[in-house]
Amino acid sequence: MKNSTAARLTRALALSLPFATLMGCAQAPIQLEKMGSFHVGGREVVLSGRPVKEIALTAGGVPAKFDPNGVYQVEQMYVQYFIPKDPRGALPLLMWHGGGLSGVTYETTPDGREGWLNYFVKKGWPTYNSDAVERGRSGFAMYPDIFQTEPVYLTKENPFERFRIGQGAGSYSKDPQRMKLLPGNQFPVEAYDQFTKQNVPRWTSTDAPTIAAYTELVDKVCPCVVIVHSQSGLFGARVAQARPDKVKALVMVEPAATGAVEDATKMKNVPVLAIYGDYIAQDPRWPTIRANGGRYFDALRAAGGNVDVIDLPSIGIKGNSHMIMMDKNSDVIAGIIQDWLVKQRLYK
Amino acid sequence: MKNSTAARLTRALALSLPFATLMGCAQAPIQLEKMGSFHVGGREVVLSGRPVKEIALTAGGVPAKFDPNGVYQVEQMYVQYFIPKDPRGALPLLMWHGGGLSGVTYETTPDGREGWLNYFVKKGWPTYNSDAVERGRSGFAMYPDIFQTEPVYLTKENPFERFRIGQGAGSYSKDPQRMKLLPGNQFPVEAYDQFTKQNVPRWTSTDAPTIAAYTELVDKVCPCVVIVHSQSGLFGARVAQARPDKVKALVMVEPAATGAVEDATKMKNVPVLAIYGDYIAQDPRWPTIRANGGRYFDALRAAGGNVDVIDLPSIGIKGNSHMIMMDKNSDVIAGIIQDWLVKQRLYK
Repeated sequence: MKNSTAARLTRALALSLPFATLMGCAQAPIQLEKMGSFHVGGREVVLSGRPVKEIALTAGGVPAKFDPNGVYQVEQMYVQYFIPKDPRGALPLLMWHGGGLSGVTYETTPDGREGWLNYFVKKGWPTYNSDAVERGRSGFAMYPDIFQTEPVYLTKENPFERFRIGQGAGSYSKDPQRMKLLPGNQFPVEAYDQFTKQNVPRWTSTDAPTIAAYTELVDKVCPCVVIVHSQSGLFGARVAQARPDKVKALVMVEPAATGAVEDATKMKNVPVLAIYGDYIAQDPRWPTIRANGGRYFDALRAAGGNVDVIDLPSIGIKGNSHMIMMDKNSDVIAGIIQDWLVKQRLYK
Repeated sequence: MKNSTAARLTRALALSLPFATLMGCAQAPIQLEKMGSFHVGGREVVLSGRPVKEIALTAGGVPAKFDPNGVYQVEQMYVQYFIPKDPRGALPLLMWHGGGLSGVTYETTPDGREGWLNYFVKKGWPTYNSDAVERGRSGFAMYPDIFQTEPVYLTKENPFERFRIGQGAGSYSKDPQRMKLLPGNQFPVEAYDQFTKQNVPRWTSTDAPTIAAYTELVDKVCPCVVIVHSQSGLFGARVAQARPDKVKALVMVEPAATGAVEDATKMKNVPVLAIYGDYIAQDPRWPTIRANGGRYFDALRAAGGNVDVIDLPSIGIKGNSHMIMMDKNSDVIAGIIQDWLVKQRLYK
């Protein structure tokens, strides 16, 4: 086909949107150049002097000699990635979840809507969603041999009462009719059971290897934008201050902890957006957590940093729980993050 | 635009493949109608009479009162799905991994090639990749309180020597130069460290809840095709014989166990493809595992079933380890499965 013919057809087709469909060129909602996964980080530990056992690993299978002495791979971290066909995010976007959870946090919401992973992939961000060390597909190590503490298992009551869904202690009930909800709460409480299925055991002694693995991830795939939630507020701040040349923006969604005020100058070139939900003043713990965050953000500003802090109720967005990315208005908050990233000139 | 104009343009364009690119209609390698995840199955367990603790869940965070008494959600199963824009698989394809592993088995191979998940999604199969109960993103329950046994942790030596990569006991070395490989082995041994990062702890007392969760998954998304590997050979056979109207084909890749010979008649309408790799005769355990499988497949045939068993070396494909979906010729074996599914008229 000659160029002039092509040009004529191009003009004709530009006037005819349905033609793309006719030609089998309809765009799929999610178009990926590639997707896949890998593990980063971790270390080897050698254990010795233990008795050899014989274990039938599969019922009806053939027993295998099982020697617990040897080399163990521990503290690695799982990362799954989705690279859009036509990226519009200027940099990769990394999603780090909170405590007792995994990368599932950012996938489908408990009530079946698309989560932030899909939101940002559809916007064209090359997105890396990870399971922190010892969570989910990262696996966990023997304890107390390798990890120093025992795992923490959460009851169904615990997140309900602690994540500002119910009205604090005693507000959970197995009977949805008897749950005492915070009034106007945006959490999809009808799917609370599905949310608790996403909860995984977690340790309280694994911050150092987790920060090491996230740092290795940043060294591997960044410069980038990092979105953190809850527990990973600590990890995001620590990694960003260690790699301020690589973390080009840090979005902190309800950080349970942040960096140290003394380290604020290390962050002066890392733009930060912090977002908090509703019901903080009436909670037994969140006023302290919010105040700690506030002191850190003040220190970043004093050091010359670019920091935006949004308390959602102050801009008229009410009812958000700690699990903002699952709340019924999750896309509204994703939109706020997206707009802020555009403002930081990180979107093409 | 009039229909006649559209028809003329269609003819013109049909002669011009590069035009699609010119029009911005280039197809992305992976086009999805949707992707997401959910958990199925599980049950609630109530624990009581335990002391309340205070735990700082995040270093630098605010300690939370931690009451271990209450309702626990346990034994649920994580499932991630990828629905192609233009499905060509006639039914959904479910991928069930082996012991001590998770759905990561089917993602990127340890040496960075695309795994079977991408292979079958690109072929147009709506694909559901799960983490078995107590693996990966499914989470695990307290033991011995809820699970009856302790988790089993594997050394790096263990799969190397047991999965027919090295020459049995003593063949593993941290020094790749000193590993004693089975000659001609197809496993990407240069990425063996990456493979061990995919290993997760597993229990030996969770077959019943795992079968229950897989059955719930089949009830939710099938009729379907199920691909199983190693430990999940048992799960696949048990679920297929319980739901022969829903499991329309069962592909067993190196099943470590299968169903019971007595139950063979329940499977007579479920076509089965079994695939085994190389080095079986010289292994201490695999001749027995292979013979057990053979007896089961003979019983299926005797009951009128449609069973194809492929020992890869017998068709000239040599060097496959137990981890066939990660071996360097993984796409060749995926192609054999794809061709068999076409032959079963399960592909459009």
